[in-house]
Amino acid sequence: MRVGIIGGSGYVGGELLRLLLFHRQVEVTMVTSRQNVGEYVFGVHPNLRGLTLLKFVPLDLSQIQKNCDLVFTATPHGSSVKLVPKLLEMGLKVIDMSADFRLKNAEDYVKWYGWKHPHQELLKEAVYGLAEFHRREVKNARLIACPGCMAIATILGLAPIVKANIIEKNKIVVDAKIGSSGAGSKPSIASHHPERFGGVRPYKTVGHRHIAEIEQELNTLTNEPVTVSFSPHAVNMVRGILSTIHVFTKKTLAIKEIWKIYRSQYQGEPFIRLVRYQKEPYRLPDPKVVMGTNFCDIGFELDPHANRLVILSAIDNIMKGAAGQGVQCLNIVLGVDEKTGLESMGFHPM
Amino acid sequence: MRVGIIGGSGYVGGELLRLLLFHRQVEVTMVTSRQNVGEYVFGVHPNLRGLTLLKFVPLDLSQIQKNCDLVFTATPHGSSVKLVPKLLEMGLKVIDMSADFRLKNAEDYVKWYGWKHPHQELLKEAVYGLAEFHRREVKNARLIACPGCMAIATILGLAPIVKANIIEKNKIVVDAKIGSSGAGSKPSIASHHPERFGGVRPYKTVGHRHIAEIEQELNTLTNEPVTVSFSPHAVNMVRGILSTIHVFTKKTLAIKEIWKIYRSQYQGEPFIRLVRYQKEPYRLPDPKVVMGTNFCDIGFELDPHANRLVILSAIDNIMKGAAGQGVQCLNIVLGVDEKTGLESMGFHPM
Amino acid sequence: MRVGIIGGSGYVGGELLRLLLFHRQVEVTMVTSRQNVGEYVFGVHPNLRGLTLLKFVPLDLSQIQKNCDLVFTATPHGSSVKLVPKLLEMGLKVIDMSADFRLKNAEDYVKWYGWKHPHQELLKEAVYGLAEFHRREVKNARLIACPGCMAIATILGLAPIVKANIIEKNKIVVDAKIGSSGAGSKPSIASHHPERFGGVRPYKTVGHRHIAEIEQELNTLTNEPVTVSFSPHAVNMVRGILSTIHVFTKKTLAIKEIWKIYRSQYQGEPFIRLVRYQKEPYRLPDPKVVMGTNFCDIGFELDPHANRLVILSAIDNIMKGAAGQGVQCLNIVLGVDEKTGLESMGFHPM
Amino acid sequence: MRVGIIGGSGYVGGELLRLLLFHRQVEVTMVTSRQNVGEYVFGVHPNLRGLTLLKFVPLDLSQIQKNCDLVFTATPHGSSVKLVPKLLEMGLKVIDMSADFRLKNAEDYVKWYGWKHPHQELLKEAVYGLAEFHRREVKNARLIACPGCMAIATILGLAPIVKANIIEKNKIVVDAKIGSSGAGSKPSIASHHPERFGGVRPYKTVGHRHIAEIEQELNTLTNEPVTVSFSPHAVNMVRGILSTIHVFTKKTLAIKEIWKIYRSQYQGEPFIRLVRYQKEPYRLPDPKVVMGTNFCDIGFELDPHANRLVILSAIDNIMKGAAGQGVQCLNIVLGVDEKTGLESMGFHPM
Repeated sequence: MRVGIIGGSGYVGGELLRLLLFHRQVEVTMVTSRQNVGEYVFGVHPNLRGLTLLKFVPLDLSQIQKNCDLVFTATPHGSSVKLVPKLLEMGLKVIDMSADFRLKNAEDYVKWYGWKHPHQELLKEAVYGLAEFHRREVKNARLIACPGCMAIATILGLAPIVKANIIEKNKIVVDAKIGSSGAGSKPSIASHHPERFGGVRPYKTVGHRHIAEIEQELNTLTNEPVTVSFSPHAVNMVRGILSTIHVFTKKTLAIKEIWKIYRSQYQGEPFIRLVRYQKEPYRLPDPKVVMGTNFCDIGFELDPHANRLVILSAIDNIMKGAAGQGVQCLNIVLGVDEKTGLESMGFHPM
Repeated sequence: MRVGIIGGSGYVGGELLRLLLFHRQVEVTMVTSRQNVGEYVFGVHPNLRGLTLLKFVPLDLSQIQKNCDLVFTATPHGSSVKLVPKLLEMGLKVIDMSADFRLKNAEDYVKWYGWKHPHQELLKEAVYGLAEFHRREVKNARLIACPGCMAIATILGLAPIVKANIIEKNKIVVDAKIGSSGAGSKPSIASHHPERFGGVRPYKTVGHRHIAEIEQELNTLTNEPVTVSFSPHAVNMVRGILSTIHVFTKKTLAIKEIWKIYRSQYQGEPFIRLVRYQKEPYRLPDPKVVMGTNFCDIGFELDPHANRLVILSAIDNIMKGAAGQGVQCLNIVLGVDEKTGLESMGFHPM
Repeated sequence: MRVGIIGGSGYVGGELLRLLLFHRQVEVTMVTSRQNVGEYVFGVHPNLRGLTLLKFVPLDLSQIQKNCDLVFTATPHGSSVKLVPKLLEMGLKVIDMSADFRLKNAEDYVKWYGWKHPHQELLKEAVYGLAEFHRREVKNARLIACPGCMAIATILGLAPIVKANIIEKNKIVVDAKIGSSGAGSKPSIASHHPERFGGVRPYKTVGHRHIAEIEQELNTLTNEPVTVSFSPHAVNMVRGILSTIHVFTKKTLAIKEIWKIYRSQYQGEPFIRLVRYQKEPYRLPDPKVVMGTNFCDIGFELDPHANRLVILSAIDNIMKGAAGQGVQCLNIVLGVDEKTGLESMGFHPM
Repeated sequence: MRVGIIGGSGYVGGELLRLLLFHRQVEVTMVTSRQNVGEYVFGVHPNLRGLTLLKFVPLDLSQIQKNCDLVFTATPHGSSVKLVPKLLEMGLKVIDMSADFRLKNAEDYVKWYGWKHPHQELLKEAVYGLAEFHRREVKNARLIACPGCMAIATILGLAPIVKANIIEKNKIVVDAKIGSSGAGSKPSIASHHPERFGGVRPYKTVGHRHIAEIEQELNTLTNEPVTVSFSPHAVNMVRGILSTIHVFTKKTLAIKEIWKIYRSQYQGEPFIRLVRYQKEPYRLPDPKVVMGTNFCDIGFELDPHANRLVILSAIDNIMKGAAGQGVQCLNIVLGVDEKTGLESMGFHPM
């Protein structure tokens, strides 16, 4: 399949490029960029040096139509919404990495993003690209809306227990920790090394936009409405998300019951690992372990003192949280093994 | 006043030494160590090079009695309990940095620490050295039990809102992030740089011992029993704790009311700063900002979506979380300005 | 003395502010900024919260004349040269933190900085503010040109051995490692956390401008011209410089002779510590140990295999490498103890 | 081919395991460990979770003889020398990761390692496993001695210019920077996160053992004896080595001539990339870029000011510096493409 990447100079675009250049069923026919037109992709993504002599090209829809069957749009929120309808009209399949087609309810864009969605007809059609829960719809979708990185970690951690109907659904606390790559490749004072190094900075402590998609997805699994209390923190690492999810159980549970719930949900999933080892330091999920991989490591701990269940969910935000997830969806579309091109196991230590 | 430090080769002992060597009302007369007897203190704490030619001496009670009026015991949990009674008998004042005299209820030692306390008569006498709430008792105490580092950050963040009786007291989630110095100066696989660098590791996710003292202190402020859901995470920094405290309010509140509650509690407190600035990146507390200081920075954010209040509380675990807190107590004992010797404002950037 | 800081929103300006607010012989009467006029200084330098309610003011020469006796110009290279002559004319003393008055030879500005110096008459008058070698001139100077951060570490490490005439002066290799704060407070792709974290990046490998002042100073100590081969590297820390200086000795030397040379040069210097301890890990200088201090730690090792002497020189680039050095010069001007306001010993660990 | 790994719980052993489990021409038949017998390999190397259910077994020579055709000995210096002769006698091929068979001259073991080599007969036979220079001997070797990590970076950077006979061979300064994984998986005070984080620590500043093999290899390329002045520094990263090599040229050279020398040496080499890009921040080699790969990135800069050539050589110490290098040698032995199993291109950012 001939694939194009629109927006290839950002971190997600660069990772898509790396993954697709190794993908046996795919040919990358073009990579666009606004700022780096004419430059070798390895000038921006130095890890690609020696692998390819591809250069960034400007966005040209007719060229895309001619050369691509499927396009990844790794464009900023608000840009995709203008571009994607045109790509679909041209008969292309689209995997969109932005938030512009993730929400089903147009009003949620007003509430969480502050703008009126101009293509509401596509919201219904778009498939939320969380493979573990929408495999069948992804298979035949024209438009796949890849989930937000923190939404992926959180939904995968929460979904089984929400479905099981054993927790209080209006007291779900998600305390997330994320690396600096999550804020993108554009320099800012918040991501300036002297300011970011060695701290723990709460940001978007309330009102984070990923709450909208997290609740949307979880609400499809249960009759009782779910309210998520979500607060992320910027920590001193580049890649990775740990979602620490604190929920209160309706009744006293045994750890075996929790195991059973998660195992029956995720049995056979190629990228979910249940982690509850017998000894430290890697007893529970740590984003350090999944760096460079498409895994979501999930673990848990029961706290009888407070009737609490703590769920830990760790991903690499650029892989399972974005580009890796996109390639997993592509594999479903292609009808090949979902692991194709996503075999990396990470490193120890890193 | 002549002061001795027992256990001076650890991180807390070393920080006490630094603070006390600059303290105008204090003379450090001896520093003991088991492992480094005969060595210059600057051999273990390289920052002290050029300040002092003090050497570590072995623990010798008769020497301590002769040369000290007050002793800091920076000894491990389980060691202090054997040593402190002897020091008190010798007529010395003691500021104990361990957990051995923090809990009032002897049964709590069985429950949380797994041993029977051999000197229960001292538990009642010992004063929990949280200056902000026990200033008066500290003044005349023979035995001051310095709080645990994560307990300090958490209690200071929670106390005003617990007293105000406006939150659900059995659904208090405390998600803490702590630097590697919190695990002490003894090498281990968990603190080995290749394993610790760049990750976020949940540990003691349930059942952390500091819960006992947090609940003990908070329960003195309210009639309704408090249950704390506490989970710490090891992050990639050396010093610092951020306690992110998620609580649910009983009714809808305005941010002004929260301000009022915290301001009226902490008005005039020399080491509490309320932080809610108008712009990023330092809008809310970050342990990076308090490194090297005795401040506890407290901020908050209201989440109407979930009737949640998020409280952020940041300290330097070795300063306000241990040695600085101890010196603040010492200043109260001495009757001098509480800020004496604790004037450092930290650095930007660091 | 009434002191003003021009350019107070950068890292050096902020550190000057912190130091001077604690300085007993000084009153900070104004702090200017172009970008942050009207804002509290603690909004930019969060460590200063609670210490001062000073706000940034615009640069207004008449106000400066009225309110200041001495001014620190923490302005970029090329800006100071326009400003300083006016300040001098107004009868103020100036301590300039930029490179604009460091070089004695006007042609060196053409060669190393690429511009013609418009005030060559001041180059002769300006005193190079390296206290350890120009104490007497600093005392009565109208204009003090504070040295570059990497120049300070390198000159202090090299000077004694250059004076001693025992090394080959055209084969001096200085391999420096510097933290991210050295590149200033303005965000850039090179200092973007995801790009800077965890790497070792050579930059300005040849032709670094500090070479000019290093050679200028060293050439005053010897008849034989000195050629310095200088290459800095950006490493994963915020503060700190380590200059590793590799020189070749003309004859075989004993370590005692080296000690003697350094000790006789630096005997009594308040901020130079000779470091050659008997055991690891702090056997030799490490910038980690001097963070937050005005120390320059110097150590050395003899390599008989290659007739090489390795000299290690570590400083905090914002302290001894800039603001601390400036305050040391101020203390000389004021005629007070050079350590005034510079007492901090750093922290262990940090 | 059936391959065994002796010493699989260390970092090099774990990386060999990861690489070989993916290697299409190889079956890993056993992994030994002294400390972790009976434990799943993923308990020690958490990245391997889900890939394999292999467990560590004790070292049993008869089992090895029965189940292996080739063995990697990832055992400590001094252990390999006892083990390898027995393995060879059993008819196995051995790729040894220790230093025990790297040096040709038995006296060098006395000089640099302090012990008399008990199997000098094997020193001549052993092939120094630097593929780029010993491909042909590796092909048919019974015993391959994999080079030291810092030796690899340094030799690959220096060899072409040493061969070209245009530098002063007794004034070669190699200033290396290395990540914490280089010191191995065993906790120590030097690698304790609070002590290692955020610093730059010179260690083995003179007399480092890798000098012996660096000089041995370089001396085979030239008639003039080479003397290397080598000093490593421990920096705040986990993986990676940057060797900054400062040499003095005998005559003035143009950059094109340097390019030509390096290109003609390394043309077609699968793992050498020459890096001299037109813009920052990745203009020259940075170990950050090669993390997780088998690449050695080499760049250079000419300094006319001092007749100096600066060569930068970056590798991942566990990959090209150890396990990756070992697998590259294995591929040569197997007669397959040298890139087999070593395709990873690294990540951006990481």
